[in-house]
Amino acid sequence: MPLVRIALRTGTPPATQRAIADGVHQALVETISIPPADRFQLISEYAAEQFIYDPSYLNIPRTDQLVILQITISTGRSVEQKRMLYRRITDLLAERAGIRPEDVLINLIEVAKENWSFGCGIAHYVPE
Amino acid sequence: MPLVRIALRTGTPPATQRAIADGVHQALVETISIPPADRFQLISEYAAEQFIYDPSYLNIPRTDQLVILQITISTGRSVEQKRMLYRRITDLLAERAGIRPEDVLINLIEVAKENWSFGCGIAHYVPE
Amino acid sequence: MPLVRIALRTGTPPATQRAIADGVHQALVETISIPPADRFQLISEYAAEQFIYDPSYLNIPRTDQLVILQITISTGRSVEQKRMLYRRITDLLAERAGIRPEDVLINLIEVAKENWSFGCGIAHYVPE
Repeated sequence: MPLVRIALRTGTPPATQRAIADGVHQALVETISIPPADRFQLISEYAAEQFIYDPSYLNIPRTDQLVILQITISTGRSVEQKRMLYRRITDLLAERAGIRPEDVLINLIEVAKENWSFGCGIAHYVPE
Repeated sequence: MPLVRIALRTGTPPATQRAIADGVHQALVETISIPPADRFQLISEYAAEQFIYDPSYLNIPRTDQLVILQITISTGRSVEQKRMLYRRITDLLAERAGIRPEDVLINLIEVAKENWSFGCGIAHYVPE
Repeated sequence: MPLVRIALRTGTPPATQRAIADGVHQALVETISIPPADRFQLISEYAAEQFIYDPSYLNIPRTDQLVILQITISTGRSVEQKRMLYRRITDLLAERAGIRPEDVLINLIEVAKENWSFGCGIAHYVPE
């Protein structure tokens, strides 16, 4: 159910991109009970002029290795679960992809359970 | 008012891309009363490594022809209307673009009516 | 906190793209109290066939210079603040980037305060 949009700079090595995607997914599985097979991720690369970020907002020093994650999930997670998710994503991106914790920006969009169809025109999470 | 983001694999023929966009729009018009002229769609192509999907989540066999739709609409549709929308999109994509029903993933994001401006800085759906 | 996605046609001059991004950010700062350093923007270019818009929905004449903005912010802004934001974005895009007011389409997505992490895995807007 999560639809994960991963934005990063053009030129990020493919192996790093994959490690980022793997790490984000593993964190979702571990912290907010996403089924391992529930994986849908879109990775987009941006040129420098089209990837605009503040290098120090909230006193966090960011570099061009910044990864911007926009993750659409169903509603229902607590603040504490979201905190665990952020920490785990950040830890795994450091561990698996060598991304500095400062270079991980995460935004969650929450939607109703009936806002998903995984194929065949069925609203899978609200069975008839 | 819908803003439709269509994600598919690089190399999808332009005629197929157009047929997908046409089918999605027709379904929105037919099932949730979107005005025919209310059409705004962005199509993005992704390389294989950047278009990550599970090939069998929820026992739906997916292929590289998968189409991932993220559609932002105003709140107010019932679960039944959303079900009709999913079915109609899936039917029309099969009919018009030859897309297998299993290869249509849909996510809706809902926003308040005042969250749209269609030009000239006006909040068109909440007139002053 | 805003995550700003800017969609426009391929071939838009880089200086125009930058002026658009600058104008959107300035409007956010001026009208809805976004901190000046809170700036995160992704610009994507689309080919003609992948940038589909209605040229006259709601009697607004649009051209290929159309800019589609999807801005994710935290909840809490009033309708009047959103109106001010739309007007200011539109004014500044005309002034700074030469974009016709008719060619500015804006959509806001609102999320909970705890749906952001700006680095280091911290939910910055809901301190522990």
